[in-house]
Amino acid sequence: MNNKDMHEVSIILTGFGNVGKAFVDLVQKKAEVCRTKYGVSLSLAAVFRSQKALVFSPALALKDNPEGLNIISGDEGIPGWKEDRRLADVIENYAPGVLVECTPTESYTGGAGLDYIRLALDKGWHVVTANKGPLVVDFFGLMERARLKDRCLKISGATAAALPTLDVALYALAGTEIVRMEGILNGTANYILTRIGEGSDYLTALSEAQKKGITETDPAKDVQGWDTAFKVLLLTNAIFDLSFSLQDVKVEGISEIDPGFIRDCREKGEKLKLLGRMEKKEDRFILEVKLLSLDGSHPLYNVDNTEKGITFETDTMSSVTVIGGKSDPQGTAAALLKDIINIYRYL
Amino acid sequence: MNNKDMHEVSIILTGFGNVGKAFVDLVQKKAEVCRTKYGVSLSLAAVFRSQKALVFSPALALKDNPEGLNIISGDEGIPGWKEDRRLADVIENYAPGVLVECTPTESYTGGAGLDYIRLALDKGWHVVTANKGPLVVDFFGLMERARLKDRCLKISGATAAALPTLDVALYALAGTEIVRMEGILNGTANYILTRIGEGSDYLTALSEAQKKGITETDPAKDVQGWDTAFKVLLLTNAIFDLSFSLQDVKVEGISEIDPGFIRDCREKGEKLKLLGRMEKKEDRFILEVKLLSLDGSHPLYNVDNTEKGITFETDTMSSVTVIGGKSDPQGTAAALLKDIINIYRYL
Repeated sequence: MNNKDMHEVSIILTGFGNVGKAFVDLVQKKAEVCRTKYGVSLSLAAVFRSQKALVFSPALALKDNPEGLNIISGDEGIPGWKEDRRLADVIENYAPGVLVECTPTESYTGGAGLDYIRLALDKGWHVVTANKGPLVVDFFGLMERARLKDRCLKISGATAAALPTLDVALYALAGTEIVRMEGILNGTANYILTRIGEGSDYLTALSEAQKKGITETDPAKDVQGWDTAFKVLLLTNAIFDLSFSLQDVKVEGISEIDPGFIRDCREKGEKLKLLGRMEKKEDRFILEVKLLSLDGSHPLYNVDNTEKGITFETDTMSSVTVIGGKSDPQGTAAALLKDIINIYRYL
Repeated sequence: MNNKDMHEVSIILTGFGNVGKAFVDLVQKKAEVCRTKYGVSLSLAAVFRSQKALVFSPALALKDNPEGLNIISGDEGIPGWKEDRRLADVIENYAPGVLVECTPTESYTGGAGLDYIRLALDKGWHVVTANKGPLVVDFFGLMERARLKDRCLKISGATAAALPTLDVALYALAGTEIVRMEGILNGTANYILTRIGEGSDYLTALSEAQKKGITETDPAKDVQGWDTAFKVLLLTNAIFDLSFSLQDVKVEGISEIDPGFIRDCREKGEKLKLLGRMEKKEDRFILEVKLLSLDGSHPLYNVDNTEKGITFETDTMSSVTVIGGKSDPQGTAAALLKDIINIYRYL
């Protein structure tokens, strides 16, 4: 709004699994809209996957051009992918742009993603990430690094992606105090609970969810509540500018659930849901992932199957609930692109 | 995020009815949070009502201080309110800040609010408004005026207020194409429909809604669908940067509804709702306010009583629904304050 100049933005993509590929696909399709509507002209500088990298010099302008896409999404078989290229050797060849972090979640060490994000921020790049691992391990440190360099580290892709969560909390509810937050934040767990309620069994439901491509690489993270815990942790830290760690979240999962109990809830007109919860009591925070039976008056009662939803209870706007958003790599890619647009919109 | 300096912001409030008073009350309570969390230090320069004005020179610093509030909310009985003060005579005595427009909606001429907003923008003030009238009459002209002066004209207070609508569409869904929008956008109409479904009659339900303080000054705007039409119009123009006028919205109301029909819907497990709708087909837009019977699978099915909700259907994030937000002057005041915070956050 304050600057109508075109921003020329180089993108480095780290991680080229389902989300990384969906992101390249999406930015190709949306390149023209980004230019005309948001004043952001995107080009692809490099793609890094575990052992190989594809580096464009100069950066490849992204256009609404399926040919261009094929070059990249053709995977390792096509020419150009080289071994022994490291982010550190490449990043300085471009004017700082945005690192798009899509490597798999590694929630104990932060994995390669943690190094990528640190390096990019230190070199003056903005970062948008779909990877929860580095944020779970070092949220406060990374945010501090971003602040020091006056860069943005935006995490919609790691906090329920296409379901707007942080944007609503930080922007649409600005000035309110969020006193409670409850979310159905994991599509796989919600799908399994829904299907068991309808008569299916646990393993069949899990395998259906995997076929839909919505489960984490390690589905244990979904069904044992950890993915939900990550999101509750990241949302709480981001909303309140705090530094809770995973140990501060009390976590319950669905992997040992009794199907009979789910159906008993149904018969009472209730539904068993795995909720990520944050509650603020005076200056004390309760963070938990908990199985709760919701009655029809709960705003998340109708959030079934792979759908997600979140309710914020505020002091001055009462309760605000957001439901929906695509639970798949395309939805995550759209959340990453949204964060990029919003970084440059106000610069 | 990019500027940690404190913004000293003078506020001129035009309109001192329920919303204006709630706004003064709220900014007193939130003054400290605005300073410490958002870097915005608010002071009150002047309050204008139809015939009188209360002018502070210098502007009155707003603090978490109930005494200060009493000075202002004590209404015309207390000293300080003077006749014959006009905005044009006063506005230049202050460094440009934010005009908070809360005069009653006048949707044919735009009323005094239209003049206030034009003057403020021309003098380099930002504007946040709860008044739909001026926006209905001259949305595009006002936005153009704001753009020319590089000022913000923010309208959350006029587009369902505490229910986040525009913030979600423009910020949380940035980069998506919104192809359809459906909202329950008027708390009074929804309350009446809900109560009739439960067995009440039209006039009793209307009078209950009036007692709750949620109706427009002229409740005909609520029940004949015009308030919903205003919001559909403003949302569509703001989201797509267009200049539709009220004549482009096909409007239906609830004032002549057959209670038997509402109850027939209920018996089928459906609910009759007054929906504000926008649909984009190729380059053609359909804008309408329409009574529709929703079945249980519709995301707005459970939005009852005075509650509001909106669903955005997008190309890349699927469907996103937002429900809730306080339907009263306090909720509207919170939306006005939110817009002020977001103006200064990115400057």
